[in-house]
Amino acid sequence: MSTRIPVVEQLPHLPTNDVLDALRTAFTELAAGTAVQSPQTVMLLPDGGDVIAYQAVIGDAYGVKVSPYLPQTNCSAVVTAWTLVLSTRTGRPLLLCDAHALTVERTAATSALAVDRLARPDAATLAVIGSGAQARAHLRYVRAVRNFTSVCMYGPELTEADAPDDVAVARSAGEAVTDADVVLLCTSAAEPVIDASALAPGTVVTSISTNAPRAHEIAPEALADLEVYGDYRPTVTAAAGEMALAAEQGLWSPERLRGDLPELLTDSCPLPSGERPVFFRSIGLGIEDLAVARLLERP
Amino acid sequence: MSTRIPVVEQLPHLPTNDVLDALRTAFTELAAGTAVQSPQTVMLLPDGGDVIAYQAVIGDAYGVKVSPYLPQTNCSAVVTAWTLVLSTRTGRPLLLCDAHALTVERTAATSALAVDRLARPDAATLAVIGSGAQARAHLRYVRAVRNFTSVCMYGPELTEADAPDDVAVARSAGEAVTDADVVLLCTSAAEPVIDASALAPGTVVTSISTNAPRAHEIAPEALADLEVYGDYRPTVTAAAGEMALAAEQGLWSPERLRGDLPELLTDSCPLPSGERPVFFRSIGLGIEDLAVARLLERP
Repeated sequence: MSTRIPVVEQLPHLPTNDVLDALRTAFTELAAGTAVQSPQTVMLLPDGGDVIAYQAVIGDAYGVKVSPYLPQTNCSAVVTAWTLVLSTRTGRPLLLCDAHALTVERTAATSALAVDRLARPDAATLAVIGSGAQARAHLRYVRAVRNFTSVCMYGPELTEADAPDDVAVARSAGEAVTDADVVLLCTSAAEPVIDASALAPGTVVTSISTNAPRAHEIAPEALADLEVYGDYRPTVTAAAGEMALAAEQGLWSPERLRGDLPELLTDSCPLPSGERPVFFRSIGLGIEDLAVARLLERP
Repeated sequence: MSTRIPVVEQLPHLPTNDVLDALRTAFTELAAGTAVQSPQTVMLLPDGGDVIAYQAVIGDAYGVKVSPYLPQTNCSAVVTAWTLVLSTRTGRPLLLCDAHALTVERTAATSALAVDRLARPDAATLAVIGSGAQARAHLRYVRAVRNFTSVCMYGPELTEADAPDDVAVARSAGEAVTDADVVLLCTSAAEPVIDASALAPGTVVTSISTNAPRAHEIAPEALADLEVYGDYRPTVTAAAGEMALAAEQGLWSPERLRGDLPELLTDSCPLPSGERPVFFRSIGLGIEDLAVARLLERP
């Protein structure tokens, strides 16, 4: 029995800019072909539930994140996530870490990278829909890439006392997005929470939705009126509920995806035209999990 | 930083019968549908090499074994294997272990389970082809399931001094298999090492071969004259080199597989008729890796 392989169960403080830099590097390497993103696998359990595995390679490290979804008898579910990182030089483990909190960080930082590429230079007003851990992480990361003079947040149970610093509380999602230049959808809703097609041209909306099948935070039919981007072209159009539904109904097609993060970060897709609202959808990728896990390696 | 999750880097002594029992249970549960065997995945690395991932569920545990194959500049390759086991009750890791030595154990024990089901009750003479770690492990496990009055071993470099206790050294593979009731092929050869079709009716031959594409220890054309079994029906006929080649050449078809280990251990396939030699081929399965890894959990 040995403990030379680090096991990280408590997430230490991760500097916001370190996370952003790690993800920027990962997506740039994915564009260059020096990083590899595998399709995720889903293994069904005999008694219900499943285990999703996300594999990726960046530089000299291979990572696999396994995330069990375990329904309980009381209608709730246990969801965990653990990442194992191996060196592709030695074949030895570099790290085993609890990836639950890391998943929140990487998801929020990915949205922030997109906002930084997609929002107008003068974007000044921010709306955050949702008030949970994901919403607060999104706010932290997006503030690290852009300066906003006005921020408001809406959540059904959010009060002034619970709001983050310098954040106004809106009474509805509709009120929150009025005059917003950037809108971050951070809900666990599986149905539309705003009418994205009614927003002003150039407004950027990010969406993460949930893992529920066909989940979506905007209406599928809204895609026709938006300039649509995603985290990774090979996977996002089939996995995003609103994209899959819109394509099935003939309202939108995957060829209309204007770009993904590897393309946005290497200037190889068109930027928004300014003529319509802009929509960025992320599903989550193994290279994001690996990129942030590597920040936990001992120096 | 915490070390509450056990990390096992040095394999402790595993009692032979514990390994056999664990595998017997795993294959029986696979037959009953309470264990799950996923297809293995292969992820290609940007600079050559790959990582194979084996996932499985047995009882209340999920396991993933990841095995990187990392070519080096001197024409050799680094190959490692690590298994992560998670509880499907809590979603927490139960164990991370070096699976390299465990892979030898589970492979040998799987062959022994097959020999116990397939060999005649009066089988008394054993031949082992190969003299490496895999051959010695096979000898240990097969001796735990059957009593042999005579054992001989052949390896190109094997001497009397290096032979295991009570084992005669043969001068050729052909000499070793003469009059053998059971033949264990444990070579890293990717080409035929014996003429299996020339053996006496009822003789049982096991084969593990290597991971090289299309590798085989017996000639594909020999299958037509053998009663053929495999470790797991859904995967073995496509993955075993001799079976894939024989099917391509129209010499044999996957429907002729008489049974697999889940069937053999639950009496749901025909046993050998005694009219022809018998061939058992294993590829290796995630449930085997998980079954033996669980033996390392702290009581």
